[in-house]
Order: sequence, then C-alpha cells, then structure tokens
Amino acid sequence: MSERAKDAAPVSGGGPAAEVAGWWATAVSRIEPDVIELRGQPVQELIGRIGFAEMIWLMLRGSRPDPRRAALLEAALVSSVDHGPHAPSIAVARMAITCGVGLNNAVATGINLLGDVHGGAGEQCVRLLEEVVADGDAAAVVARRRARDKYVPGFGHRFHTRDPRRDPLLGLVSEAVAAGVVPGAHLRAAIEVERLIAPVPMNIDGATAVIYAELGFPAPLARGLFVLSRSVGILAHAWEEAGQGRRNKGPIPPSILPTWL
Amino acid sequence: MSERAKDAAPVSGGGPAAEVAGWWATAVSRIEPDVIELRGQPVQELIGRIGFAEMIWLMLRGSRPDPRRAALLEAALVSSVDHGPHAPSIAVARMAITCGVGLNNAVATGINLLGDVHGGAGEQCVRLLEEVVADGDAAAVVARRRARDKYVPGFGHRFHTRDPRRDPLLGLVSEAVAAGVVPGAHLRAAIEVERLIAPVPMNIDGATAVIYAELGFPAPLARGLFVLSRSVGILAHAWEEAGQGRRNKGPIPPSILPTWL
Amino acid sequence: MSERAKDAAPVSGGGPAAEVAGWWATAVSRIEPDVIELRGQPVQELIGRIGFAEMIWLMLRGSRPDPRRAALLEAALVSSVDHGPHAPSIAVARMAITCGVGLNNAVATGINLLGDVHGGAGEQCVRLLEEVVADGDAAAVVARRRARDKYVPGFGHRFHTRDPRRDPLLGLVSEAVAAGVVPGAHLRAAIEVERLIAPVPMNIDGATAVIYAELGFPAPLARGLFVLSRSVGILAHAWEEAGQGRRNKGPIPPSILPTWL
Amino acid sequence: MSERAKDAAPVSGGGPAAEVAGWWATAVSRIEPDVIELRGQPVQELIGRIGFAEMIWLMLRGSRPDPRRAALLEAALVSSVDHGPHAPSIAVARMAITCGVGLNNAVATGINLLGDVHGGAGEQCVRLLEEVVADGDAAAVVARRRARDKYVPGFGHRFHTRDPRRDPLLGLVSEAVAAGVVPGAHLRAAIEVERLIAPVPMNIDGATAVIYAELGFPAPLARGLFVLSRSVGILAHAWEEAGQGRRNKGPIPPSILPTWL
Repeated sequence: MSERAKDAAPVSGGGPAAEVAGWWATAVSRIEPDVIELRGQPVQELIGRIGFAEMIWLMLRGSRPDPRRAALLEAALVSSVDHGPHAPSIAVARMAITCGVGLNNAVATGINLLGDVHGGAGEQCVRLLEEVVADGDAAAVVARRRARDKYVPGFGHRFHTRDPRRDPLLGLVSEAVAAGVVPGAHLRAAIEVERLIAPVPMNIDGATAVIYAELGFPAPLARGLFVLSRSVGILAHAWEEAGQGRRNKGPIPPSILPTWL
Repeated sequence: MSERAKDAAPVSGGGPAAEVAGWWATAVSRIEPDVIELRGQPVQELIGRIGFAEMIWLMLRGSRPDPRRAALLEAALVSSVDHGPHAPSIAVARMAITCGVGLNNAVATGINLLGDVHGGAGEQCVRLLEEVVADGDAAAVVARRRARDKYVPGFGHRFHTRDPRRDPLLGLVSEAVAAGVVPGAHLRAAIEVERLIAPVPMNIDGATAVIYAELGFPAPLARGLFVLSRSVGILAHAWEEAGQGRRNKGPIPPSILPTWL
Repeated sequence: MSERAKDAAPVSGGGPAAEVAGWWATAVSRIEPDVIELRGQPVQELIGRIGFAEMIWLMLRGSRPDPRRAALLEAALVSSVDHGPHAPSIAVARMAITCGVGLNNAVATGINLLGDVHGGAGEQCVRLLEEVVADGDAAAVVARRRARDKYVPGFGHRFHTRDPRRDPLLGLVSEAVAAGVVPGAHLRAAIEVERLIAPVPMNIDGATAVIYAELGFPAPLARGLFVLSRSVGILAHAWEEAGQGRRNKGPIPPSILPTWL
Repeated sequence: MSERAKDAAPVSGGGPAAEVAGWWATAVSRIEPDVIELRGQPVQELIGRIGFAEMIWLMLRGSRPDPRRAALLEAALVSSVDHGPHAPSIAVARMAITCGVGLNNAVATGINLLGDVHGGAGEQCVRLLEEVVADGDAAAVVARRRARDKYVPGFGHRFHTRDPRRDPLLGLVSEAVAAGVVPGAHLRAAIEVERLIAPVPMNIDGATAVIYAELGFPAPLARGLFVLSRSVGILAHAWEEAGQGRRNKGPIPPSILPTWL
C-alpha cells in the first residue's frame, strides 16, 4: 500500500463509513488517486507486458498464467467469437443497432441472450466432465444424464455433422497433456463420453469445456469466458450493420411482409 | 467457396427466400454445414495460430494485423479492463448477480451502461484528434470545443491527477511511431492538445484514443473496443460478488439504512 | 379476417416463405396495412373503451376480464411499483441514466435485475400456493419447502415487520371471494401458510401471488406482472435522476471515496 | 413524517453517512420500516383506490390527475402496446426467451431496443409540437425540420397508409379540448403540421405525442410512457413464445437455412 493510502483516514473503528467501504470491498482491483492495481499488480507494469488473454486470466484467477496455459485459453477464446448472423445473440445485436441505441447497448443486448440454452452448454459440460472425473464411470454418468434430459451438453449440433473447431482445439489440449502442461483427466473424460454416445460428436461447447476444465476454471466461468469471446462477433456484426443504414430492422425484410399476411 | 456451397440452391432469381437471405447477408462470417469461415478464413486455420487481440482486429477490420500493430491494440485492451467497484458499469454488474440472473445478464447489465458519458470519451476523443489532424490548428479546435462544452474528451480525471496508464501507453505509441509502425499524426495532435490545456493531463480515454486512431479504427470502434476491454473487469467483479452469497445487493448495506431515513 | 387479407397471396403451399411466416406466427396480434388487431380485437375498438390494466389482461390471457377481476389485477399492479432507491432494480436504473444512455436503456437495465432472487418470489409463491391447494396439507408442503430452503417465498421481509401492503390487498381478495368473483382456494392456502410460520407475515410478493393465483395467471406471469408494475417506479426514479445532472453516478458519492481507501 | 422517522438518527451534521444519504435522496418514495409512501401518499391509501394509469401519473408527476386527464393517458397507453412480432423490440424478446433467460431478461431485451429510432419518435414529435406552439408558424417549423431531416417525427408510416389508431386518439383529445380538460394548442399544432405535409398522415407516435403534450408531460417522458405501454406487448409475445418450446430461435427457421447459403 502506498504512503498516501497509509495516511488516509482508515475505515477501521466501524461506523457507517466502514460498513459502506466493506460493502464494496474487493480483491479484484485497488483504485486510489494516481494508483490502479489489478489483482495487486500496478497497471503500468502490465501494459505492454501482458497479453489480453493473460489479462483475462489474471483478472479472473488472481495470478498470471504460465505462457503455455495462456495459449490454451487464447485458443478457446479465438474459437467461439462468432457463429453467423442467425445465432440469436448476433441477430438481436444487429437489430438493436438499427433502432437508435449505442454500440454498447447493442453488444449488451446480444450478451443478454447467452443464457442457459444459448450460452450455458459449456458450463453444463464442465460440470458433466467434473462428474465423470469424480465418479470414474463415464457410462453411468451419461446414463443418468440421459435419463433426465435428451441433451448431453457439449455434444451434437443441429447444423454441423462435425464441428470444424473440435479437432484443432482437442489437438492443442492433447499436446498440452503430453507436455505435462495440464493433467488430462477432463480430456479423457470427454473422449470417453464421445465414444459412448457415438456417432454424436463433441461440439464447440464440449471442446472449449475441456480446455476450461483442464485449466482449472470453475464451471460458471465457462459461460463467462464464452461471453467474452462471443462479444467480439457481436460487436463485429453490430458494427457492420451500423454501416448499412437500415432503420428498425426486423427479422424479415418489410418489403415482403405483406405478401405473407 | 466450397464445392458444397456451390452445389447448394442459389438465392439468385429473387423471391422471398432471396430477399430474406439478402436481409441477413454479411461479410463477417460464413456458416455452412461443417464450414465456419471468419472474414474468409476457415476457423480451423485460426485456432492456435492467432491471438485473441489479433482475432478482434480480424473480425472488426476484415484482415489480420501485422504483429507490431496487434501489440499496440493489445496494450490498449489490457489497460482499460477495470477501474474499481465504484465505476457504475462495475457496480451494477455486482448488484445484478445478487438478484438471481445469469452471469451473462450481469455482464450485459454492466456493458449497457457504457454510454456516451461513461464509455463515449474515447470515441469523442478520436473525433477530436481527427479534427485536429484535418484542421492543422489544435488551438482553434480546442477553443471551438471549449466554447460549446466544458469537457475536452480524453483529458482530465475527477480522481487521478496523473493517470498511471497514460505514460506507458504513450510510450508504446511513441516507439511505434519511431519505428514507422504507425504514422504519428494523431499522437502529435494529442500531445499538442495536452500542452494547450495544461495542467489537465491526458487520461485513459485519451491515451487509448491515440492508439485506436493511429491504428486506423473509426471513432465508434473506440467505444466498441472499450466495451470488449471493460467486459473483462465487469466479469471478474460479477464473479467475485457471486462467490459472496449476498442477495439483492443495493448500493448501501441494509444494516445501516434505517439510521439514515 | 378482412377482404384484403383473404385476397393476399396465401402462405399455404409450403416453401421458404410459408416456413418463415409460420416461424413468426402469433395469436397475440395481427398487423396488416391499416389493420391492427390485438387478440382479435381491432385496436380502434379498444382505445378509449378499455383500461390499461384490462389491456394487460387481454394481451396476456386472450380475452377481456370482467370488471371486478380487472380491479383485483389493478390493485396488485398499483401495489408493487416501487420500493425505494436502494432496491437494486431502482438503483441501477438511476446509475444508468447518468451514464449517457437513453431512458429506455435505463429502464431495461432495472428490469434486467428482476431475476429469481429480486423478482421471482411472487412466481415461487404462486407455485407454493398451487402445491398447497393440490396437496391439501399445508403443513406438509411447508415442511418439505423448509427442508430444502430456509426461505418460504412470499413470507417475511428483511425490512418491514408488517408490510403495509398486505392488509389492503388481502382485504380486496377477501371481498372478492365473498362476492364469488374468485374461488378463494389460494387465499385460504396463503392464510394457512402464514399461520403455520407465524410470526413471519405475508409480504408483498405473497399478497400479490394470492391475487394472481386467484385470477388464474400461471406462475411465471406473476413475475411478468411484477415487471410491468415495477417498471413504473424504475422509470420515475430514472427520470428524477436525469433531472439532477450527475455524471457516472456510482453507489457512493465520489467526494468521500478517498477517505475510505 | 412519522414519529418513528423523527426519532431516527438524523443525517444532518454532515459526515460520510449524511453524504451517502443525500446521494440517494429522492422525492419519489419514502421507505422506512413498515412505511411505504409513494409521492408522499401511504401505499395502503392507494391500493384499491387508484387505477394503474393514475398511479403512473402520480409516480411521474408527483400528484394525482383528475379522472378526465387520466382517461386520456390511459387511452394513449392502451394504443401502443404492440405492433406485431416483426417489430424489433418484440422479435428480440421472443428470441431471448428461447435462449434460457428469465422473463424479466426477455422483456428488458425488448425495451433496450426502444432507442431514438424505434422508440424516440413520440419524444421528437412532442418537441416539434412545442416548437410549433412557441413559434406560431407551423410552416416555418416544418420547413426547418425538413431542411435537416427527411423524416417529420410522428407523421407517416412505412406500412399503414392510415394508422387505425390515429382517429380514435385524436377524437378523444378533441373532446377533451372541447370540454376544457386540456388547452388544445398542441392538438392544433399537430393538425396544422398534418395539413402542411399532406397526404402523409399522423401516425401513432404523433397521436400519442399530442396527448402527452396536452397533458403536460415533458418530451422525454413520451418515450418513457411508450416504454411502459410497449412492455405489455413485449411480455405477451415473450410469454407466448415461451409456451412453444423452441430453443435458440433465430430470425429464420433453421430448416430452410442451408438452402440459402
């Protein structure tokens, strides 16, 4: 803590001020006049020395990753940025920007849709993999899962027969396991589940879930990291739409609406 | 375009199908069964070969940056992730997550607040710098600006006397100018404005605006990039708050509310 | 259906146009050139002849309520509009409007927080009352509930010892039961639960849940109706804040922040 | 103020507690243990005695309306609840609810789109009418407006040749003017503008703007009131969609997507 902070009136001693300060206490960042520390590290020592993916890790985990783990995280973040203008999160952002709101509001609108169904499969798959690792019997876990839900999160796609992102992501994890960078238990669990429910292949949520789980992220952060990744595509699409000058874009071109009614 | 796509029924020939397809046409991504192309590049050739900051550039600009420009973008993204729990965008995300919504909804709530006042200074500063570069007379531009608004966007801070992020960011741009990586006109414009309104120093919005302008991003994307950066801090804070188990967190601890009413 | 609609090109016969039309088919409203029908009723026959609360009923249920049921709905909507500036939904809307976003964005920000914890108690209480009515044994239902959660939704308040909205709302329902306007089973269930967990009294979520359940609204619409009601307070607070000219309002006045750090 | 409040520790005397209390001070509502006052009126004296539209007036204006003015407000609120599933605000809410978020999140998503273009015409039309009333020369005001923008807010519709909501709304205002309930200057201004730009007729935003202006609502609340009205349709559509069980609804049915790509 700086000299200046030490000189400041402490909040100890109780009273409303201390209670309010405690109410907003955080270990994420410390902001004082002319001081910005992120997870205990002065921001000026981070700028230019740390990559954006490493920064994400630092902010979420509290310490910096080694470079090989950071590379895995970076690959997962790169893989999920977009899935086309018909994905609900993308479509609504494109519609929003034509309605006269800010670019931030359009991005927020898209992110707001990454709920349990649209953005939650990665989180659910991490939990599934954790369950397989803890239980040791993948077949039993999958059977229990299927007994209560027809979906196995992280597997299958209504559109792709084989998601082109699966192989490169699993390849990177396999290399990392071989090099001792990550333990490999969750990768093995995912491969086992895929074998059990063949021919339904692992999808992008499954492949990124393997990475997030191998890197030690708790399940809810699989959704959080997907949010950060998909924000990129949402922004790119909203920005493209902004350049086209439409007003109040609905799902269907208004020129052909009357012929359908 | 793949064989498969060429064989697909074309949308040419008009009719409602073609109109709907055109309504959602995009140059950002192409999604077909088993094909994902982002700005014309197959996703499997990007995963593991491109950094997250480079991916952001590719998605927004349509082509990949050279590494030295990508490094500047990365530094700007790293610098703005957080400014403490009292920033409105952060505070509302922390409050949101205690209300029983998803992590995506909490992040969206925070981003929704990055409007003209909270998230728009970078965008406005890029415009100011562009105006100085185009006009050539910084003093005249600043005078016109001050005649209609007391704020000069990108300069001054209600909290920091000297923002600790200014020097490292400007240092990186200066090096890039010296190395011929970026032209330098917007950097010189910003330094000139800072001299004119001394002792009010450049703040984070100004320093990142210099980078975004030097890299050729249009002004509105200064806000868009700030949204991507600040999303990291919003997520980190929402996640920390989620771990503390509060319910319906208001701005003030409820224990001391009655004594104030 | 009007002559005009009958003459229009039908969507029967299949094809993409019919599929898209079916994708967006709705029984809520029908919009054609110069025709607006809401739940089958031409809008011009509703304007000036139906109250706003009745309109809410019509839109959600598909038919118009009799006046005495509409009055019960209206009382519930009136009762929940606001609970002060420290309620998270209200506080974030006040913060949002100081950040340079539209009034619609500020209201959306507040509503976004009415999740399972902040806005879900009414919905959960309707389910509880339905369970009591179906089971017939309130004590057993309450015991099962308490075995898995310390909260009984709709009962107790961290702030009020006796919520001033309980008595007038229950008074209106009791009169409606006595007059044969509503059946009364859910009112009796709520009174029985309150007796079982005395001295914890019914709160606003419980009292409105009784009304919504007696009126036959499915449980999720208890949250939906709360959203409509609370939107009024969110708007009133955001509008008041807009008039005060603050910029980037955080939870704590910035003037006293440094003394706490 | 109640005895209890008078006995409570006052915030006078300054210090952090007083500053924080002042930061969140409001004239909208007063909440103390067992006390809820809305605009100075105990909530228990409002429940069952005031309509929902009157409550909206009270919360926004600070006092209760006379019944004939409340009826005008109620007609305006009734008229704007919905404009079909293709309106962006409605479509995104329907898409949102299929993505696994709460009903509140779906409604917030829709409201977030009621920006300057989608939800701002009423606000802009109130300003136009105020300008005509202040200037006295409608032709000059319209000419100035058209010189800088091709749209005259509140007039014309891309879909309806004559909006079916115009006549009944203007009929109600005309009666109110005749009865001395409202002054009539803004109604006359709107009729004059309509005559000047014939054959483009007044639309719903224009007709409701007349009502809001005649009732003395400041222009931004025209958008605020539209938000409250449209929330009803947004909720009704999201709820209908929720009952259909789709997952991740995009703008186009996925079954026909591949034939277009």
